[in-house]
Amino acid sequence: MPRLLLLSNSMNPGDSYLNHSRKWISHFFGSGTKTIAFIPWAGVTLSYKDYCYKVRTALEPMGYRIVSVHEVPGPAALIHDSDAIAIGGGNTFKLLKMLQDHKLTEVIRNEVLVGKPFLGWSAGSNVAAPSIRTTNDMPIVQPQSFEALNLIPFQINPHYLDLQPELHMGETREQRLLEFVSENPAVYVTGLREGSALSIDGDKIELLGQNPVRIFKKGVNPHEVNPGESLSFLFG
Amino acid sequence: MPRLLLLSNSMNPGDSYLNHSRKWISHFFGSGTKTIAFIPWAGVTLSYKDYCYKVRTALEPMGYRIVSVHEVPGPAALIHDSDAIAIGGGNTFKLLKMLQDHKLTEVIRNEVLVGKPFLGWSAGSNVAAPSIRTTNDMPIVQPQSFEALNLIPFQINPHYLDLQPELHMGETREQRLLEFVSENPAVYVTGLREGSALSIDGDKIELLGQNPVRIFKKGVNPHEVNPGESLSFLFG
Repeated sequence: MPRLLLLSNSMNPGDSYLNHSRKWISHFFGSGTKTIAFIPWAGVTLSYKDYCYKVRTALEPMGYRIVSVHEVPGPAALIHDSDAIAIGGGNTFKLLKMLQDHKLTEVIRNEVLVGKPFLGWSAGSNVAAPSIRTTNDMPIVQPQSFEALNLIPFQINPHYLDLQPELHMGETREQRLLEFVSENPAVYVTGLREGSALSIDGDKIELLGQNPVRIFKKGVNPHEVNPGESLSFLFG
Repeated sequence: MPRLLLLSNSMNPGDSYLNHSRKWISHFFGSGTKTIAFIPWAGVTLSYKDYCYKVRTALEPMGYRIVSVHEVPGPAALIHDSDAIAIGGGNTFKLLKMLQDHKLTEVIRNEVLVGKPFLGWSAGSNVAAPSIRTTNDMPIVQPQSFEALNLIPFQINPHYLDLQPELHMGETREQRLLEFVSENPAVYVTGLREGSALSIDGDKIELLGQNPVRIFKKGVNPHEVNPGESLSFLFG
């Protein structure tokens, strides 16, 4: 039964890295998690070393040991031997390409499906979905395919925002997601606003944070689901 | 010698479709263009028929006959027989997938390289570049590859904007393009603001509109080039 904590973003405005989600993370990992395998591959201009330092600074005071895939000769063994997996944000295309190039997608999927806790934020939440087709990121590199870890049966759109920048004539986020469901009619999308997260334990799913999540599906009017309300329809 | 008119956007706020670029378009096509082959495949929730109607409404009063690829049995023959090619905006991934699925990329490239005028806006400008790696669009469908028409040797980022929506913790456009040049160090990117266009005639290139274009390349500080200033460095 997979257990996932999927955050929209790594930090709230004016806050420190991962601070808004400290309580969620410690509750999610519980006492069984000591070593976390961290994947910094979504970083582009941020080096893996610097990225790992940021994450260590945030999570090691909480009692976890962070080991990054870029620090070991065998990423697959690290993922197998760790108590949990964490994938950080950045560029979703680069992240998925690296996971595919290192042949880690099946390794991670198999570990999570038998119960290893998975923490993702932003791009790391995108790749937990069946595909990266609802990422907001720029396709700066080409992965082998858009198919991702498929740990959950629905799509996530992190950093969901309602407003359109003034005088900008590109599509709104809602228009983009309506185009997605038009082309992919069988799939739900959750527009996860800043400061929100989804906590998943088997077929139980809970929305964390203050904001509602916006739901998109072909043939259904986009609508809001508030924290505390049921999201079990996402497991269809 | 390729001739291209590449617009950032199809309309300015409060204006009618393609109206801001009427003078540019009639100057670009000149008197030799009667029939324009139009490609509406970037449309997703907008039907090809409705898309074509919008474009006809804008361009037919200027004296052009618009024939869309969705209206004919043989798109390649239409492109070959028309005086010019126009590709409209929408979703760049869907557009490129359709061009690839219909095996039209080489057909269009060959026609443009021997002088057939090419008009693009938004997604239609994206696909004129070597790849779609600097699109802002959501990857709602997966093309066979990110390689595009390669009619110009540099990338375009249409709808370039400087501001970050308030309280949004995703990357700014500049951060995204700096990530692109970090991963693709040999390539220039032109951040083309709303209301701007690039007019290209062989190795001559001119920036149209009131706004400067923002230039990105690995190892070079992002900087502005104003209308009237030289952009010939983009041809290396």
